[in-house]
Amino acid sequence: VQISLRRILFGTPLRTERIVHERLPIILALPVFASDALSSVSYATEAILIQFKHARLSHDYYPLTLWVSIAIVLLILVVVVSYWQVIYGYPEGGGSYLVARRNLGLLMGLIAASSLLVDYVLTVAVSVAEGVAATFSALKQFIGPSVPLGDYRVATCVVVILLLTLANLRGVRESGMMFAGFSYGFIFVMFTMIATGLYRLWSFGEPMQSVAMPPDPHATEALTPFILLRGFASGCAALTGIEAVANGVQAFREPVARNASITLGILGAILASLFTGISYLAVQFQIGPSEDETVISQIARAAVGTQWPGGLLYYSVQAFTAIILVLAANTAYAAFPRLSSILATDGFMPRQLAALGDRLAFNNGIIVLALLAMLFIVIFGGLTHALLPLYTVGVFIAFTTALAGMVVQNLRQQERHWGSIIICGLGATVTLMVFCLVLQAKFIVPQPFIRTPWFNINEGAWIALLLMVINVGMFHAISAHYRNVDAQLAYIPPEASRPLKHTVIVLVPSRLHRGIVQALTYARSISPDAIAVHIAFDQAGKERLCEQWEKHGCGMDLVILDSPYRSLIGPLMRYLDAAEKIWDDDIITVILPEFVPAKWWHHFLHNASGWLLRLRLHYRRDVVITSVRYYLD
Amino acid sequence: VQISLRRILFGTPLRTERIVHERLPIILALPVFASDALSSVSYATEAILIQFKHARLSHDYYPLTLWVSIAIVLLILVVVVSYWQVIYGYPEGGGSYLVARRNLGLLMGLIAASSLLVDYVLTVAVSVAEGVAATFSALKQFIGPSVPLGDYRVATCVVVILLLTLANLRGVRESGMMFAGFSYGFIFVMFTMIATGLYRLWSFGEPMQSVAMPPDPHATEALTPFILLRGFASGCAALTGIEAVANGVQAFREPVARNASITLGILGAILASLFTGISYLAVQFQIGPSEDETVISQIARAAVGTQWPGGLLYYSVQAFTAIILVLAANTAYAAFPRLSSILATDGFMPRQLAALGDRLAFNNGIIVLALLAMLFIVIFGGLTHALLPLYTVGVFIAFTTALAGMVVQNLRQQERHWGSIIICGLGATVTLMVFCLVLQAKFIVPQPFIRTPWFNINEGAWIALLLMVINVGMFHAISAHYRNVDAQLAYIPPEASRPLKHTVIVLVPSRLHRGIVQALTYARSISPDAIAVHIAFDQAGKERLCEQWEKHGCGMDLVILDSPYRSLIGPLMRYLDAAEKIWDDDIITVILPEFVPAKWWHHFLHNASGWLLRLRLHYRRDVVITSVRYYLD
Repeated sequence: VQISLRRILFGTPLRTERIVHERLPIILALPVFASDALSSVSYATEAILIQFKHARLSHDYYPLTLWVSIAIVLLILVVVVSYWQVIYGYPEGGGSYLVARRNLGLLMGLIAASSLLVDYVLTVAVSVAEGVAATFSALKQFIGPSVPLGDYRVATCVVVILLLTLANLRGVRESGMMFAGFSYGFIFVMFTMIATGLYRLWSFGEPMQSVAMPPDPHATEALTPFILLRGFASGCAALTGIEAVANGVQAFREPVARNASITLGILGAILASLFTGISYLAVQFQIGPSEDETVISQIARAAVGTQWPGGLLYYSVQAFTAIILVLAANTAYAAFPRLSSILATDGFMPRQLAALGDRLAFNNGIIVLALLAMLFIVIFGGLTHALLPLYTVGVFIAFTTALAGMVVQNLRQQERHWGSIIICGLGATVTLMVFCLVLQAKFIVPQPFIRTPWFNINEGAWIALLLMVINVGMFHAISAHYRNVDAQLAYIPPEASRPLKHTVIVLVPSRLHRGIVQALTYARSISPDAIAVHIAFDQAGKERLCEQWEKHGCGMDLVILDSPYRSLIGPLMRYLDAAEKIWDDDIITVILPEFVPAKWWHHFLHNASGWLLRLRLHYRRDVVITSVRYYLD
Repeated sequence: VQISLRRILFGTPLRTERIVHERLPIILALPVFASDALSSVSYATEAILIQFKHARLSHDYYPLTLWVSIAIVLLILVVVVSYWQVIYGYPEGGGSYLVARRNLGLLMGLIAASSLLVDYVLTVAVSVAEGVAATFSALKQFIGPSVPLGDYRVATCVVVILLLTLANLRGVRESGMMFAGFSYGFIFVMFTMIATGLYRLWSFGEPMQSVAMPPDPHATEALTPFILLRGFASGCAALTGIEAVANGVQAFREPVARNASITLGILGAILASLFTGISYLAVQFQIGPSEDETVISQIARAAVGTQWPGGLLYYSVQAFTAIILVLAANTAYAAFPRLSSILATDGFMPRQLAALGDRLAFNNGIIVLALLAMLFIVIFGGLTHALLPLYTVGVFIAFTTALAGMVVQNLRQQERHWGSIIICGLGATVTLMVFCLVLQAKFIVPQPFIRTPWFNINEGAWIALLLMVINVGMFHAISAHYRNVDAQLAYIPPEASRPLKHTVIVLVPSRLHRGIVQALTYARSISPDAIAVHIAFDQAGKERLCEQWEKHGCGMDLVILDSPYRSLIGPLMRYLDAAEKIWDDDIITVILPEFVPAKWWHHFLHNASGWLLRLRLHYRRDVVITSVRYYLD
């Protein structure tokens, strides 16, 4: 039953040879990488608007959102161009870990790896949370505002993560065709929505459905440059996912570097257009952030309404957004276990993370990822806005380390490509500046905006940073442990010429039976001098045993140890101590006769002393433990 | 640290010889057995009053309570007189289990045992619940009615049970002196209270503090004979604990039977007087049952008040009542594990229940008792009235089986003591009738009176009955299992003359190290033909191993099993199957080399495959498992 349930859930095992490496043409590679990068447009504009919500904004201030967005688009441009250099420099797939470790040293490599791991966890958490938000926004149009959908947010997110986990444990292959359908569909409906919205705006000057938010009555702050920078920092969430192309260059057809660069360029262009379009429409329709409805949903309502025929487009936008976000989460399910397994192979993470499961997936990594993502969802109440600050910090560390690594690599080469150095240097500098900006903007917070169910947290960038520091410390500790173990195991002493002399001890209970006699026979076959040891709790048992020993003792010596405190462990350990002193040059084998009942619940009817003894002996050096078991029917 | 925490909680172990059997004179034996028997007066009168609460009772009806009490006193007389026969018949201590099993057959013996076990659990639950109620009643006089003490009822009961459990796990000796102080104190304050109450009543005709309950406005039933019988059945809770003397005859000085009879007689007389006195005062003071305050507390308030000097007596009554109830619970802590260990020795309960712990207490029985008692407390909300019906059923089964057993025993003897037969026959008949009455009165309930937090339950006698049936079934199943095991183990085949031929298999990983080489040496010392087996997941590991094998293979054969599905278990099992077929007459030893890391948390950094393999091999017949461990520093 156990086996078959497992088969139903996880499928039959797959052979190792069935690992295949798809090589995709641009037309299929683009949608595969698009999900992670493009899905960020669904929350980036909203992230900016939230920062401005508390400022005393008359509607005149709205255009600022647009200018902040344009600044972010410029940043996208810088990152895309400098990542071209990474792609050409590491056509075998240059993750930040690899680039940083090779050029900036181990510590920077581990920092990059740590930030990436935290990031993948947050990719799952943020994408699932936003996907659920998109679904709930659409649901609200159907069922009206009376149902408190927000109450089910966390539970829904957890269920989605569990389903994703199950699918990945089954070893879903990322099928290029499936991605193509959904990603191109997403791009198509988003552009259609933006185009319809612009047409509506320029032709009629008013939205299909009114969505304008009244100015926040609690807005008490003036709009300062500080708040502007904070908005910019938050909006940088739009850049998440761009680095994925550089990590996955191996998925492209030859010439890989060229194809990857072209794909990255196209992606950047689509990302920039969608982001600008969405921000522009949000400004024009005077949309404010809301916990109940995503900004994309509000824009879509304003642009096309929820009634036929526009409603078809509205619901398509919501559906494709939700799907693309789940696909984005799914890319982390591939990336996190892969990076973990690389780190495990390098000895920085537990080795179990490098083991392939039944279905050729890194099961342990997948499970760790799922647990951490669920933890974040629960702690932050499944609110995207609460999770975004953590996310952005990690992404920009990855950018900076990779680009700085490229600069160093180029400087070290014989013939220096100054163009590349300047571009990467610029990229590294800009992303570092943004990182600092994100960090300081998110540390100093005058007033908490988002209350999660557990604690007030607005800008949790410090949590991401703390996690990274802990991670790096953990990497070092694990690495030190493995190196220590390796050193101890490495030396293999020359074979001893003298044959081993055995001291064999059989533990016998107060009553002899078939199983015990079997163990005695076994012991004598190893050593003719094997000794039986009985630990006596009472006189009656002692006498019964001596009597039986006459008949069935197999001619072995019987040692009776009195145990006035009715403990098995104490007297046995003292006897072993003595035995070790007397037979100094021998190896001691302790034989534990056990009988195995037919049904598992029968274990409750028998003493667990065998297990306890074995557990205790496990920590005793220089003793070999042998179980001779006797089966009951 | 683990050891020393255990020492602090449970004390240092005691030697087996330190089991002592105190032999008490009547003056000390009386208080020991008094706690269980006399503590029932604290809830018996209340149990009757509760049954009458719903009937349309003008104050004229109150005297009925007194007449019901007098009927119960007659019943006490019958039981005491017939139990004298049990004491003389079984001076070695005739528990219902022993008497019934010997005379009425195994099934009746097990039914008696089962009812006793359920009863001991309920003794703990009821006594602790009532003790807490007594304490809370007194507390209420201090702190006033505003604090909802009832909210803490269950938690307080659980804490008291935990403390009792801890004390018993430490192996508290029932010290006769301690019992003497508290039991005689209890008897003294109760008689003083009753005497003062009667004096007050006859001199002044009114209570110190008014406690008369207004007639229940919800009372809708007429007082029918049925309700009268129900009151009688409930009041029979007064008889609980009487049988304890007959079970514990061995605790008396010679002549044991005579001393025990005298003690039982005195106990019966005290019990009858206290019970009559309390019921009379309850009627005269027109006291009604209340969830907040016990009837005893109300009587004491009416008799002596809560102000100085009477208050001293009031608080003494409450304190001694609470203490005597806790002592009564404590007697079950001795009786339940003792009966369990007898049943375990006879093969009807798991053998672990017969094992003495560090401190010479039957630890397992104590823990089982505590868990069950806490379960009852939680389910029934710690309300004595809800628990009493279950309790009474079991007690009367024990009475009837013991007395009927005495009748049968007397009839079988050569010279029949007709006097004894008639007395025991009468006792058995009366207690059987009361049992039927309790059962039917408590099955058919017009209206639930007590709502426990979890479900409405007034008369849960069926629960006790159900538990007993389950118990008896369990006894039979366990007994069948043990007999089956014994039969299988009993036959010891004559020793084989041919020496054992070993097939030894060592599992080796893809990398040789010191630990493995050690295991190889060990294997070869058992059998020169030992075989090393490697389960290969990938080509690289296979090649590395072959290379190392040339150098360190100790000249052993290496078998490489390909595992395309990366499973350790499958290929190994298939290999063992094949090995068993080829070397049919040998014993197969599987040697698992394991390395033991220095710190427990290091286990997380290494594969658990050793454990998993051993777990899986545990269920494979005819294989000896040997762990050769290598320790890391």
